[in-house]
Amino acid sequence: MTQPMRGVLAPVITPFTADLAPDQGRFNRHCKWLLASGCAGLAVFGTNSEANSLGLEERKDLLEGLVASGVDPARLIPGTGLCALPETVALSAHAAALGCHGVLMLPPFYYKGVPDEGLFRSYSEVIQRVGDARLRIYIYHIPPVSNVPVPVPLVERLLKAYPGTIAGIKDSSGDWANTEALLALAPQGLSVFAGSEVFLLRNMSGGGAGCITAGANVNPAAIDQVFRRWAEPGAEALQAGIDRVRTILQSHGTMIPALKAVTAHFGQDPAWRTVRPPLVELAPADEQGLIRDLLEAGFAMPGLRP
Amino acid sequence: MTQPMRGVLAPVITPFTADLAPDQGRFNRHCKWLLASGCAGLAVFGTNSEANSLGLEERKDLLEGLVASGVDPARLIPGTGLCALPETVALSAHAAALGCHGVLMLPPFYYKGVPDEGLFRSYSEVIQRVGDARLRIYIYHIPPVSNVPVPVPLVERLLKAYPGTIAGIKDSSGDWANTEALLALAPQGLSVFAGSEVFLLRNMSGGGAGCITAGANVNPAAIDQVFRRWAEPGAEALQAGIDRVRTILQSHGTMIPALKAVTAHFGQDPAWRTVRPPLVELAPADEQGLIRDLLEAGFAMPGLRP
Repeated sequence: MTQPMRGVLAPVITPFTADLAPDQGRFNRHCKWLLASGCAGLAVFGTNSEANSLGLEERKDLLEGLVASGVDPARLIPGTGLCALPETVALSAHAAALGCHGVLMLPPFYYKGVPDEGLFRSYSEVIQRVGDARLRIYIYHIPPVSNVPVPVPLVERLLKAYPGTIAGIKDSSGDWANTEALLALAPQGLSVFAGSEVFLLRNMSGGGAGCITAGANVNPAAIDQVFRRWAEPGAEALQAGIDRVRTILQSHGTMIPALKAVTAHFGQDPAWRTVRPPLVELAPADEQGLIRDLLEAGFAMPGLRP
Repeated sequence: MTQPMRGVLAPVITPFTADLAPDQGRFNRHCKWLLASGCAGLAVFGTNSEANSLGLEERKDLLEGLVASGVDPARLIPGTGLCALPETVALSAHAAALGCHGVLMLPPFYYKGVPDEGLFRSYSEVIQRVGDARLRIYIYHIPPVSNVPVPVPLVERLLKAYPGTIAGIKDSSGDWANTEALLALAPQGLSVFAGSEVFLLRNMSGGGAGCITAGANVNPAAIDQVFRRWAEPGAEALQAGIDRVRTILQSHGTMIPALKAVTAHFGQDPAWRTVRPPLVELAPADEQGLIRDLLEAGFAMPGLRP
């Protein structure tokens, strides 16, 4: 049986060419840098990947190209949850067939206020239609963006109905009480990932598996240190250090363009600034403030520059 | 030049077979009944069509099958706005090539709180990439569901940048003040459709073009009477009549399963009750209450039964 995933995962930012096409070469290089820099795995096609701005075929092509470049699929948990049942099935089956460790699955997110029964049926239909024992689902709970929560009782119902297939959850609610309630399900086989590094120490202390976090795109090594040393003296100081960087990342414009600006700056690679609509790149003043604050905090991205 | 669309349009409910596949035959029949019963056009693949639970290929197949069945594409405004730029482009180009009157286009709706500039770029990129002079876009403003509004100043900016291509808007905000602000743009060529029949009389009095409304799926003839006779004495009584039906439709569970239950009942065709997850069919008690209230109000769907 596959070992459960543990550690720090990045929802990998997606590079685009000037005409807004996905840039496979830069994507592969950034993925390899992340894996060499502390990430246990990669949640490619997460929210911070602008994944919902990518087409179905673009996702498949990027994932195949990444594996073909030599990245071990056992370290990948691609996002596969779309609004439409047949497309969630197609992407999830594709990921399982490629040998990915698992998939990160949003609930269908267009219709709001849907009953838990409807969300249960959605996940059930996907599992039955994929029909592949290798499928491992990490539920993606991110109500601030999806506006469709996956409540704890529904997670528990799914876990009981599909043990082994429902493998874990990424909790991006920002609500520690919700993560605590999920941690009560860890003994039943739920790997609980915090959705931000600011909860990493608390999540590990409570029996969690790690974090899947935007910040890991640029600060993987320091976040990995909190994962590895959470039980040691000094863990709180390490946590305070990654909190400081996270606060800076969130203080200048919005997160995805900020992550790309930081990668462009420290990698000396301006092409990274490109975002797909509906996002807009960081304003120059925001980028200057962001880089200044990061440099003052001693931040670096060792090994990023080619 | 194509005449602007005016009148009552239904966001056509989508029938599914028992295994949740789209049911082309029932779809074609319902579309033809709607056009024969008062609908000027059909906004297939709207919110009430469960369109965001349909895959890209399912939408293309249904639209081609509908046109092949003899429905005039000049009466169709299919929904084509998805989260991912290449897919919105693909569906919009497909609809334009088929000769559809226009398309109903949601903004990309996963990322929330995006800047107007990003939404402007989204619509611009779609228009430029489709690159077809036949493309006519009806912007779809439905913040209660999409959670991504298209503010009036952005509509005005798009209308000025792409006159002739930006043809109109469906305002499903439920906020009459917003519709009034849009009506001020009607002289510049914006066809304003109310998103609910409850605003139809007010919208017509203000220079609007009609309505695109869930209720038109089951009550097209009466709604069309308000459209045709809004300037005549007695229009308010007609409006009160369609308001009464709308209130009943909204009073027993959620709208989409309710529309399907009504269609199943009055068409004596139980297969219509099927919804795709994440939706759930109406509870039996809700359906009984709904049908009872409709019958007491003298509601009927003449000509629906095969």
